[in-house]
Amino acid sequence: MASTIDFYFDFSSSYSYVALPGITELEGKYDANFDWKPIALGVIFKVMNHAPPAGDTVKGRYIGHDVGRAAAIAGLPHKWPDPFPFNSLTAARAFWHIAGSDRDAAKEWARAVFHASHGEGRDCSNPEVLGEIAQGLGHDAPALLEATASDEIKAKLKEVTGEAMERGVFGAPTFFLGDEMFWGSDRLSHLEHYIKNL
Amino acid sequence: MASTIDFYFDFSSSYSYVALPGITELEGKYDANFDWKPIALGVIFKVMNHAPPAGDTVKGRYIGHDVGRAAAIAGLPHKWPDPFPFNSLTAARAFWHIAGSDRDAAKEWARAVFHASHGEGRDCSNPEVLGEIAQGLGHDAPALLEATASDEIKAKLKEVTGEAMERGVFGAPTFFLGDEMFWGSDRLSHLEHYIKNL
Repeated sequence: MASTIDFYFDFSSSYSYVALPGITELEGKYDANFDWKPIALGVIFKVMNHAPPAGDTVKGRYIGHDVGRAAAIAGLPHKWPDPFPFNSLTAARAFWHIAGSDRDAAKEWARAVFHASHGEGRDCSNPEVLGEIAQGLGHDAPALLEATASDEIKAKLKEVTGEAMERGVFGAPTFFLGDEMFWGSDRLSHLEHYIKNL
Repeated sequence: MASTIDFYFDFSSSYSYVALPGITELEGKYDANFDWKPIALGVIFKVMNHAPPAGDTVKGRYIGHDVGRAAAIAGLPHKWPDPFPFNSLTAARAFWHIAGSDRDAAKEWARAVFHASHGEGRDCSNPEVLGEIAQGLGHDAPALLEATASDEIKAKLKEVTGEAMERGVFGAPTFFLGDEMFWGSDRLSHLEHYIKNL
């Protein structure tokens, strides 16, 4: 039976982007499906009174360097989104709207947004940029953007974010295999260990 | 030419313990020497006004689980030291005293202290426990413990801790290959990437 792995991420999370090739690799090596679940990580940070290290601290500077290095080692282009971090709510809501009718198209959207933001440094908080990405994927861009403002879609993002928080998510990317939680792109190797030993 | 990698650690750091098999593996695969450098990480935390996540928080509980899982995946026994975190100053000073005349014996000391504390859960802040470990390795235990109280050895630990802080160390384990810094046991794979491409 295929393993299903919940993949919680935020479009603004650099290490979620860095994790993408590792996810593709695991999907290729094992009978594993990743269930992509964008969340509003900022809301969780607020509830937990947590903030990632600021860029102008010793740790923040290291993390900034590590992100670029990790992307290079993973074979990914990398350019810091401007601004960073960015408001990822519209991108996440668009995902959930697309996923309502087509999960594969939603994944394609997610990959395109990640590439535009963390690969090309484009501002994916900007509806115009998101509209161009949507159009490039063959979506009706104005209709998609309009849908992101609906109560139903806003509620969906809140619901998934709440679900993640209840399960103990405090950062991104976070993976679950059953109840076993793995935080960080660098924990894909541990996740693999668990998939292999299922 | 052999690569020399500076390995800054604190005896109380769980992920420093978890990194040990990976270090041995890299030493076996490449012409690489790890220069072991115990520091007083608590001093750095104090200067940076930083503290690791408390055990009774969502993140702290996850980290607690992750440490045991990471140790198991690395093939290491694991038992939480009691107390944890523990005062590692005497263990680190003993290392530097031994290293003054014999670097290999100092590494042997470090491995033994890590095994006793994180593998067996023994209290390595306790001079009696450290004395037993010293005796087991053939050291003159009372003389070694006395040496840890000397101004010279105290100054040495301060000096190495200061050196680490100047180089940007904010956690443990931290590795340097030249000026390239890698933080965390999970970054040994990135370090390997750099060793291979030297």
